[in-house]
Amino acid sequence: MKIELAKSYGFCYGVKRAIEIAEKNPKSATFGPLIHNKDEINRLKVNHNVGLVENIEDALTHDTIIIRTHGITKERLKTLKKEGKKVINATCPYVTTPQNIVENMSKKGYTIVIFGDKNHPEIQGVSSYATDPERTHIVLDANDLIGLPLGSKVAVVAQTTRKPEAYQKIVASLVVRAAELRVFNTICNATFENQDAAAELAQKADVMIIIGGKNSSNTKQLHSICKKYLDNCYHIENESEIDASWFKNKSLCGISAGASTPDWIIDNVIKRVKEVSK
Amino acid sequence: MKIELAKSYGFCYGVKRAIEIAEKNPKSATFGPLIHNKDEINRLKVNHNVGLVENIEDALTHDTIIIRTHGITKERLKTLKKEGKKVINATCPYVTTPQNIVENMSKKGYTIVIFGDKNHPEIQGVSSYATDPERTHIVLDANDLIGLPLGSKVAVVAQTTRKPEAYQKIVASLVVRAAELRVFNTICNATFENQDAAAELAQKADVMIIIGGKNSSNTKQLHSICKKYLDNCYHIENESEIDASWFKNKSLCGISAGASTPDWIIDNVIKRVKEVSK
Repeated sequence: MKIELAKSYGFCYGVKRAIEIAEKNPKSATFGPLIHNKDEINRLKVNHNVGLVENIEDALTHDTIIIRTHGITKERLKTLKKEGKKVINATCPYVTTPQNIVENMSKKGYTIVIFGDKNHPEIQGVSSYATDPERTHIVLDANDLIGLPLGSKVAVVAQTTRKPEAYQKIVASLVVRAAELRVFNTICNATFENQDAAAELAQKADVMIIIGGKNSSNTKQLHSICKKYLDNCYHIENESEIDASWFKNKSLCGISAGASTPDWIIDNVIKRVKEVSK
Repeated sequence: MKIELAKSYGFCYGVKRAIEIAEKNPKSATFGPLIHNKDEINRLKVNHNVGLVENIEDALTHDTIIIRTHGITKERLKTLKKEGKKVINATCPYVTTPQNIVENMSKKGYTIVIFGDKNHPEIQGVSSYATDPERTHIVLDANDLIGLPLGSKVAVVAQTTRKPEAYQKIVASLVVRAAELRVFNTICNATFENQDAAAELAQKADVMIIIGGKNSSNTKQLHSICKKYLDNCYHIENESEIDASWFKNKSLCGISAGASTPDWIIDNVIKRVKEVSK
């Protein structure tokens, strides 16, 4: 059985970087889970003594706090520093960018429009950098902009994981509402790169394995994309679910993984596929 | 016969302003016709001794040159000044704005995209303010952008008379091509205001008269908009075409005029309608 990994899969650049930072800082705690994968959180605890706190009160019981890729609000960061904590910032650089843009544009008097989910930690962090909350609007589509007082100068950023097509619609609706509109393309391609690479591989593979949490929406998305190209497509969480029958009379097994799947789980899957397909 | 003028008609702000400037400057010449109306050009010549030149060579035979609403290229302006001419700038302020934007953004390293017709004098003027012609692109739709090297920072302006919907499409296509996009809404509403006002009046009038050159596209547009609401709708160039039969058993005559129609022609039409409809 030949095994081939998709050209892009699993952790994005920001998550890889955050985990490397965590591994180098034992006795610290991350503010919120670094990724949506309990096995990986557990590995960081057991192998590297990196804990996890979920709120400011718990954070204050640790000396060193790691900020995860989503970032945190400006106020929380201030509190941590005021309390004398050592803060290690693992905010994804692709998230630091919109934080800085929102702060700068807000200071320059632009009304801020943020395309994203107001309940998502990334957006709570990004929007906290606006200097004038009353002139900062978080929207999910162009309809949310109807009736909002925008003024003549508007700056717009997007949550890193949003779809470009939806961003284009929001921007188009803003063109006729502002004398000057500054559009920052803060959407990250990582999600789409994994999807494109999985689709490419599915077109030549005889069987595809997609690894990731059963509740992970980006993993489910990868699975449904591959399903378009071949029936023999399996969504698993780890190697224990692998069935030898999947590889009967097949020659190429393609593998991809969701954005929260660590490499060591992928390695275990590869090892197991090799064993059962001998 | 009751006569009612549309709430907005005829000359736009920029043209009215340019004509007032011309009337105050006898012995001058305009660089290109101030408006597309021979009667008005002739009136300026006869009543105010304002001439007309069509090229740099002819311009150099006059002491005072009036720049029309469209503006002129930076190079021509420089030549006129170098030759010691007194230059009176009647460029429409709505055109000066994109000229300044293109110059500033170009100096700041932005690639310039101009939505407009490269053969139109306004766009020739606006684009001449770019400091790097190789990084300045004039496009009529999003397809014209395909394959163009744009770089990460793009600034975009529009010809004042373009349709907002078409501008939105161009901007939408640029959102995903640049890290930072600066969109300046330089479209002027004057054309649309005349159209909206004519449509409103046509809905209550019994007969509509639209005054303007038979070849004037914006006058023809006004006429076709009014035709949607009533059949008794006439496109005339001046009062000589008015027929008394149009007003038989009618009570309200609505009047609008194209963007190149001077008020004195409109006044003559009103006078004639009153006479024949007594």
